[in-house]
Amino acid sequence: MQTPSLDVVGIGNAIVDIIAHADEAFLKRHGMHKGAMTLIDEAKAEALYADMGPAVQLSGGSAGNTIAGLASLGARTGYIGKVRNDTLGGIFRHDIASAGIAFPTADAEDGPATARCLIFVTADAQRTMNTYLGACGNLTPDDMDAALIESAKITYLEGYLYDPPLAQEAFHRAAEIAHRARRKVALSLSDVFCVERHRAEFLRLADNHIDYLFANEGELTALFQTGFDTALAQATQLVEIAAITRGAGGSVIAAKSESVTVAAAPVAQIVDTTGAGDLYAAGFLYGLANDRRLAECGRLASLAAAEIISHFGGRPEIPLKDYVAARS
Amino acid sequence: MQTPSLDVVGIGNAIVDIIAHADEAFLKRHGMHKGAMTLIDEAKAEALYADMGPAVQLSGGSAGNTIAGLASLGARTGYIGKVRNDTLGGIFRHDIASAGIAFPTADAEDGPATARCLIFVTADAQRTMNTYLGACGNLTPDDMDAALIESAKITYLEGYLYDPPLAQEAFHRAAEIAHRARRKVALSLSDVFCVERHRAEFLRLADNHIDYLFANEGELTALFQTGFDTALAQATQLVEIAAITRGAGGSVIAAKSESVTVAAAPVAQIVDTTGAGDLYAAGFLYGLANDRRLAECGRLASLAAAEIISHFGGRPEIPLKDYVAARS
Repeated sequence: MQTPSLDVVGIGNAIVDIIAHADEAFLKRHGMHKGAMTLIDEAKAEALYADMGPAVQLSGGSAGNTIAGLASLGARTGYIGKVRNDTLGGIFRHDIASAGIAFPTADAEDGPATARCLIFVTADAQRTMNTYLGACGNLTPDDMDAALIESAKITYLEGYLYDPPLAQEAFHRAAEIAHRARRKVALSLSDVFCVERHRAEFLRLADNHIDYLFANEGELTALFQTGFDTALAQATQLVEIAAITRGAGGSVIAAKSESVTVAAAPVAQIVDTTGAGDLYAAGFLYGLANDRRLAECGRLASLAAAEIISHFGGRPEIPLKDYVAARS
Repeated sequence: MQTPSLDVVGIGNAIVDIIAHADEAFLKRHGMHKGAMTLIDEAKAEALYADMGPAVQLSGGSAGNTIAGLASLGARTGYIGKVRNDTLGGIFRHDIASAGIAFPTADAEDGPATARCLIFVTADAQRTMNTYLGACGNLTPDDMDAALIESAKITYLEGYLYDPPLAQEAFHRAAEIAHRARRKVALSLSDVFCVERHRAEFLRLADNHIDYLFANEGELTALFQTGFDTALAQATQLVEIAAITRGAGGSVIAAKSESVTVAAAPVAQIVDTTGAGDLYAAGFLYGLANDRRLAECGRLASLAAAEIISHFGGRPEIPLKDYVAARS
């Protein structure tokens, strides 16, 4: 078996975020579930955008954010995801490439536009997401670059990838390639509603294909349909490590023989929670890829999450390597 | 004469900003003048973008930022500027319209793409700008909506508008329309190099067409080719009010019979100075349009500038009305 040349390859929906402030009345008027990710079609995306305030555009996507975070920490990374050859696709590709992340997936040259996520941030810094998946629907098993996946210690999959139908098969293909090469596979559960859409399949996946599981409290209990402690115990029967975030309450990391609780890192002002879970995963995976102890993985995870919630958007604004060094 | 239904109409280059961090070596390698705005062609814009780190996209343009700031303060506003009917043009138009700003200028349906400005922010929060003017070159005198200009107390022109050749004539047309309707005309000198490109013409303009002049110290002394105090005295011979910013040193406001110095408003952390001058003008014009005393105009100007330098980009992140109210 070759020595892995990369730390982590992420596979996910390649999305550009469009972020604006909104008040509670706006969410109510549009029937949004606060804090959730809702799938919308292009017409709805246009209607919502027309009613949205002045916005900021930047690359997003759950696994995209995680991989960008890893690159910002200094990890060697790759990404697989589908954009179209349009302006937003160009922005997404630029931001991945310019962070030094390998990105072999070809642009879609026709079909739906690059995916976008309209994100509304309320005064409590909570984000509510509305995603038009667009070109993500064209990610196929053939896009699972075997050489790239085999070259990475860990392949990281976002649960959201389960939404576009063709991507599910791609998801399984990627996990098989990784395990055949004796690599590790990580999964983020992404969102409570996403868990509800794919619960049976996620349980089967966790049992057969997943080594490291990332979730927040709500996603974990939705997956196992039981209370937190029981759900966590059940998770550790299925996977090697489960890292569960609890917002301001920090996180719990459970392995078969060990359990660690980690405090959230302090932030002067929480501006926007977009990407908090994604960057938690980034810090944690950085630790795992570098053989750190679980408590240290958790500390790096909390720091990466702290940087991301201190500004708009789910991509680091300053190099996380510097951010972490200044706090160690 | 009809009562003005708007406070301020801004006319400028309609630009989407692409903002990233960069280090001093990057500026040096690309031969950039730190802190300046340099005009570049499309090929250079693409080459620079390819070498740029992960970025954030949001609407910009000097007068666009000023008018967005005025709208965020609660002013009644309009904007004239040219975008193409492309993705970036759609973003610019959305952000103007969604802020409640009247924007009658039609999209260009062919020709160069919507203008973009590649902005590099160094560790000292200074911004260095590289602008591809694109569709701005298609702004013509016919775009000067007489009804809109006549309806506003003040018409605000950015000096940058002097760069695209057709826009110069548009600039004069707008000033004539405004003065014929007995409105006021304001000019921002924009940039030292811009002043050097158009010095003789700016002096003639200031003498004949400008009531309110905005500049920073460097632009003012470049215009009059003399020291600060003499330059300021000369400016007040030409215009009714000159508001001159001095960075952390605050600003000086000079009228024929009165002079006021205003301290810069405190900021916890200066993140990015993009838009500082634009938002200073926004706060100041808000005060003028509402018949405030010069010292109060300066206070509003300093507060608006303080909000904008505390985050990435030249558009307010929180309603300036609330920001100012919390500090009064």
